[in-house]
Amino acid sequence: MTLSTSDRADAVHRMLHPRSIAVIGASADLGKINGRPLKHLMEKGYAGRILPVNPKYREIAGMACYPTIDSLPEAADLAVVAVPASEVIACIEALARRGIRAAVIFSSGFGEMGVEGRVQEDALAQRARDCGVVLCGPNCLGFINAFDKVYATFSQYADGETGAGPIGFVTQSGAFGTAIAALVRQRGLGLGYFINTGNEADLAFSELMGRVVEDPRIRVAAGYLEGLDDGAALVRLARRCQVLGKPLVITKVGRMAAGARAAASHTGALAVEDAVFDAVIRQYGVLRARNEEQMLDMLEALSQPRVAEGNGLGIATQSGGAGVMMADRAEEMGLTVPELGAAARARLAEVMPAFGAAGNPVDVTGQFVARPELLSESVVALMDDPKVHVGIVWLQLMTAHVDTLVRIFGEIQARTTKPFFVCWVAAPAEALTRLRAMGIVVYTAGERAVEAAAALVRHHASRRRLAASAPATEVRALPPPTGHDGVQATVQAAAWLSEAGIPMAPVALARSEDDAVRLWQAAGGAVALKIESPDITHKTEVGGVLLRRDDEEAVREGFRTLMQRAAAAEPRARLEGVVVQRMAEGHVELVMGVQRDPVFGMVVMVGSGGVLVEVLKDVVFRHAPFDHDEALAMLDELRMSALLDGVRGQPGVDRHTIAAMLERLSRWAAHMAPVLAELDLNPVLVGARGPVAVDCVMLLEDQRSKESAAG
Amino acid sequence: MTLSTSDRADAVHRMLHPRSIAVIGASADLGKINGRPLKHLMEKGYAGRILPVNPKYREIAGMACYPTIDSLPEAADLAVVAVPASEVIACIEALARRGIRAAVIFSSGFGEMGVEGRVQEDALAQRARDCGVVLCGPNCLGFINAFDKVYATFSQYADGETGAGPIGFVTQSGAFGTAIAALVRQRGLGLGYFINTGNEADLAFSELMGRVVEDPRIRVAAGYLEGLDDGAALVRLARRCQVLGKPLVITKVGRMAAGARAAASHTGALAVEDAVFDAVIRQYGVLRARNEEQMLDMLEALSQPRVAEGNGLGIATQSGGAGVMMADRAEEMGLTVPELGAAARARLAEVMPAFGAAGNPVDVTGQFVARPELLSESVVALMDDPKVHVGIVWLQLMTAHVDTLVRIFGEIQARTTKPFFVCWVAAPAEALTRLRAMGIVVYTAGERAVEAAAALVRHHASRRRLAASAPATEVRALPPPTGHDGVQATVQAAAWLSEAGIPMAPVALARSEDDAVRLWQAAGGAVALKIESPDITHKTEVGGVLLRRDDEEAVREGFRTLMQRAAAAEPRARLEGVVVQRMAEGHVELVMGVQRDPVFGMVVMVGSGGVLVEVLKDVVFRHAPFDHDEALAMLDELRMSALLDGVRGQPGVDRHTIAAMLERLSRWAAHMAPVLAELDLNPVLVGARGPVAVDCVMLLEDQRSKESAAG
Repeated sequence: MTLSTSDRADAVHRMLHPRSIAVIGASADLGKINGRPLKHLMEKGYAGRILPVNPKYREIAGMACYPTIDSLPEAADLAVVAVPASEVIACIEALARRGIRAAVIFSSGFGEMGVEGRVQEDALAQRARDCGVVLCGPNCLGFINAFDKVYATFSQYADGETGAGPIGFVTQSGAFGTAIAALVRQRGLGLGYFINTGNEADLAFSELMGRVVEDPRIRVAAGYLEGLDDGAALVRLARRCQVLGKPLVITKVGRMAAGARAAASHTGALAVEDAVFDAVIRQYGVLRARNEEQMLDMLEALSQPRVAEGNGLGIATQSGGAGVMMADRAEEMGLTVPELGAAARARLAEVMPAFGAAGNPVDVTGQFVARPELLSESVVALMDDPKVHVGIVWLQLMTAHVDTLVRIFGEIQARTTKPFFVCWVAAPAEALTRLRAMGIVVYTAGERAVEAAAALVRHHASRRRLAASAPATEVRALPPPTGHDGVQATVQAAAWLSEAGIPMAPVALARSEDDAVRLWQAAGGAVALKIESPDITHKTEVGGVLLRRDDEEAVREGFRTLMQRAAAAEPRARLEGVVVQRMAEGHVELVMGVQRDPVFGMVVMVGSGGVLVEVLKDVVFRHAPFDHDEALAMLDELRMSALLDGVRGQPGVDRHTIAAMLERLSRWAAHMAPVLAELDLNPVLVGARGPVAVDCVMLLEDQRSKESAAG
Repeated sequence: MTLSTSDRADAVHRMLHPRSIAVIGASADLGKINGRPLKHLMEKGYAGRILPVNPKYREIAGMACYPTIDSLPEAADLAVVAVPASEVIACIEALARRGIRAAVIFSSGFGEMGVEGRVQEDALAQRARDCGVVLCGPNCLGFINAFDKVYATFSQYADGETGAGPIGFVTQSGAFGTAIAALVRQRGLGLGYFINTGNEADLAFSELMGRVVEDPRIRVAAGYLEGLDDGAALVRLARRCQVLGKPLVITKVGRMAAGARAAASHTGALAVEDAVFDAVIRQYGVLRARNEEQMLDMLEALSQPRVAEGNGLGIATQSGGAGVMMADRAEEMGLTVPELGAAARARLAEVMPAFGAAGNPVDVTGQFVARPELLSESVVALMDDPKVHVGIVWLQLMTAHVDTLVRIFGEIQARTTKPFFVCWVAAPAEALTRLRAMGIVVYTAGERAVEAAAALVRHHASRRRLAASAPATEVRALPPPTGHDGVQATVQAAAWLSEAGIPMAPVALARSEDDAVRLWQAAGGAVALKIESPDITHKTEVGGVLLRRDDEEAVREGFRTLMQRAAAAEPRARLEGVVVQRMAEGHVELVMGVQRDPVFGMVVMVGSGGVLVEVLKDVVFRHAPFDHDEALAMLDELRMSALLDGVRGQPGVDRHTIAAMLERLSRWAAHMAPVLAELDLNPVLVGARGPVAVDCVMLLEDQRSKESAAG
């Protein structure tokens, strides 16, 4: 009786847009948790049928109350469940019997209570799946669909004005989510949906948000996360948002080690390495807000419909210093503050007072109090400059001039089609309200306005990039290796990678001194010797690498030395012999790698090599597969990126050859997903002929036969 | 008739605390710039005498109005000047004749107007100095001393409540400063002083703030800067604030290149390298706020009187995620979020609900609505833990529970002596007002509360460090060299540095091949050869360095090669010969240097050597001289700091030997201030025996004879 994919989607859709709602364990006290949904539904004007269930009452607030679920007059589209934890499973079974396919479970006493609660929660999830009932929760505040006046919630956010708006908000945390929802309201922005997923025993963040973004009334998606199990679902959601052209803004806590510790004690969700999370969501166009204030700032900018066609910021101020501060922040955020063209400069020169600054930032000074047209004409001139794509006007206080300023800003808004923000520090509350009512985006701090502009620019840039993205490069589609799990023989691993088009330094295995000499002769130059054993992953740690051997005796002696050292260091290791490899050339050292992330799956890494990777942790991640441009972007993000362009007289290297290698690696990694656990290419040397991986360690772990791979 | 130092201090003091104020060019229209000071003085209840001057009126608002400055009945302590720019100088002369020693000049039309205005302003400043009149401005809003109800201003901030408080605020910008003042008022914090310095033709930021911090009613100093001419005055101010135990918070715009560009177009002040400014002010305990919001957050924390005895942050929340976010930010800001001791854990276990988290952060959940004592008892238990030095309680919304919560927070505040902040997201306005009225510090965003706590901790740590700071190490007090200006001979420079106790690799000059061979033999090992010429600063750029020469022929050939290369590359350079130097040992490469900063004077730099300094710009600055602990702190701040502890099997080096070298270098640099323009020690190699400078370039420019040094 498990639901099919389409039945499940239908059940979730009906849950969010129910024609009738049963409230199980409804209370006649409308201030209590199990009374509040009734109150909200009635007060806010829900148009469907409300069906309270409680054997204690015949009616509640004038509505017929049913003694049991079985006695309900219809199979409601949604049940709100507010019964003790111990009764929830029986309740779900009754819902299934009555044909009800979706439930919101307020009840706490599950996973958040520790091991025992977790067992209960697993049993609940299993039973719900078996019965074909989809669950939101348990331990959640429920949800609101404000468009259709669905208040399946006891959140205190529902007390007060909850007018619908273009933002869909899904939160794992009830308390923090309520705070964010209240801040949205304070800004005069509207939430179309407010959904608290709670413990996510069944429906999780990405699936619910996936339904929300399909609603044409939603223009912006916002999420608050504390943990994540299913990276693939988040990636699907992000891609869908990109296709729909709707920005997805996410705040996720748990950036640092200390924070991650606190997260572990709070949620049961799998801790995901934050750097990987951050890289992967940005790769798919998600905007990450570092905290709730930045989220609100972004939402305000993204809720307005205008498009930023580029990254040029025009700034007008009545304070030179504020202009400097905003220009600084713009540069930090990757925006430009372009010099204006001749046309704009000429127009500004006409209207500006002698002591203003007619550049960008434009300093209009406080003179506009006497001459309002000074402000409107100069800002419109600025906005009309072709290099300006977003405009910000900064001002402060002006309590006595609210009427004039509101009129001017309305005029400016009407005279430009570009996104235009007001930043009004210490603004009278009335000014904020009136501007927002006119659809004008308004901030109260300069740096925050700039950060919001940067988010808008990033969103539109990511849309343009998606539209222009190149078709995938073909990679030789080898069948995944069927070899044993564990560390693969170097020669074999290198052969697989070479076949996939990944540049590898040629290697060959010598099983004897004579072999080694022959291979050195064939190499035609100095060679490196490396011990080969499936039981030794880190060769240097056992002294298992010798470099620059270039005569017969040195090669023979090297072979003997490596076999002896390895035997001494790891007596039980199976020694296959010694790998002989022509010394590779290249003056820039990188590392590359692939890891199977527990949340997102195959993730490719590139980093600065040598001592830098250890001290600076200068590494960049992407989800596999990705294209050439994405690979180039990875190189740009390296802090030591400038090394690639040559320093101290060293020539630069060709970034495209490195990007091509990374792209191939990513496609190969995606293809190998069922069997590859980890790959290290370290070092990758880059010289005039491009990059070459000098050493590789490949670890397979076949996920297709989980049992055998469990070790 | 120029004022003596003590007369000047007295004039400034009387300016800020005048017994009578003349308003020159006073208007009977109290809404105009030159009428507004009269209005404010009367309305706010200034107790001294107000003396309007304007030949057009016999009286203004019931006060006698005088036709001329000469006709004033007394020598007022302060004159407010609001006359056209062209009349200002004559006005100052009249003030001097009448015995008035201080003036605030509102008039614009000076330096902000470009070159011509700058000439006018210089003339004004010179005339004022000659007449013995101190000036605030021109082109300023004037100032407020709210304690004594002195409103020598036309700022719109003065419209409205301006109750005095413990913050003294001095701003170079009128518009931005007004915004900050208004934000201070919005927070319910009071400004004791609001001073806008304008163009700073005479009185500049540091001098005025220096007077303000001496007022015992001021507990916190806040400044907004756009530029700085006199670094020494700022350093004196910062040290005085340290002695007084009063925090000095500064926001300075112009961090980035683009920002610096805008600043240059706005103010005439000297652009100071921001990294140097940042390092120097922090060295003297100044707290830098990156923008106006962070400044306000810091001011609120610093205005409360409690001391943070350490860097342990205790966090209580009703949302696990908020706890994670704050713990993350705390770690980023250098705070700890300590594990609690047994006593606190036991107390928490008693009061906490089963599904709360009894660690740090403490998650008290939303249960405190039903059981208020849950919140107070758990927070007090947290605050009582000896490792907790500052506490933050996070909560959200709770519109229906303001009374209860305000009572509980009052109770907690009374039960602990440690600094304790409330962070109330989406707080009802009433809650903020009531808590602030009770002296409770309250924020509306978690990360901002943590940043403010970090500022408080840093302030008190800097006070403790000052109290414990070590006596200065003696440095051989050589008389500054009396040699010629320009690049000094390597052998001479190295000798001076060695005598000052700075470890230098021994060098000797070979004037011939035979000399070179003799010096190589004396060195007893491989040597480096370097061309020596007062005209060649960057030896490597002309191929002027050869390493590891260790036989006679190599040394001879090396000498010839260097002389030929140098002659070819720089035909006009005077070639002194070749420096011969034993190859130095050391596996860690640093750079050190001294530069004469145009604002702060002698500044010492240490950085990661080799390719890192070029790509990462991994350098740290301090004002000279400084002590051993400060030198150790510099090493900690290097991003590549971990290299000093050894990586990839390399042994670590002794940080104390490097710190000792830096400290000596700083004392030597301070001593050399009159003559040293620049010193580069690059590389400084650090090995088992400590650091040694392998090469040095010393540039002298004697400031004691400016004329000769002008080239």
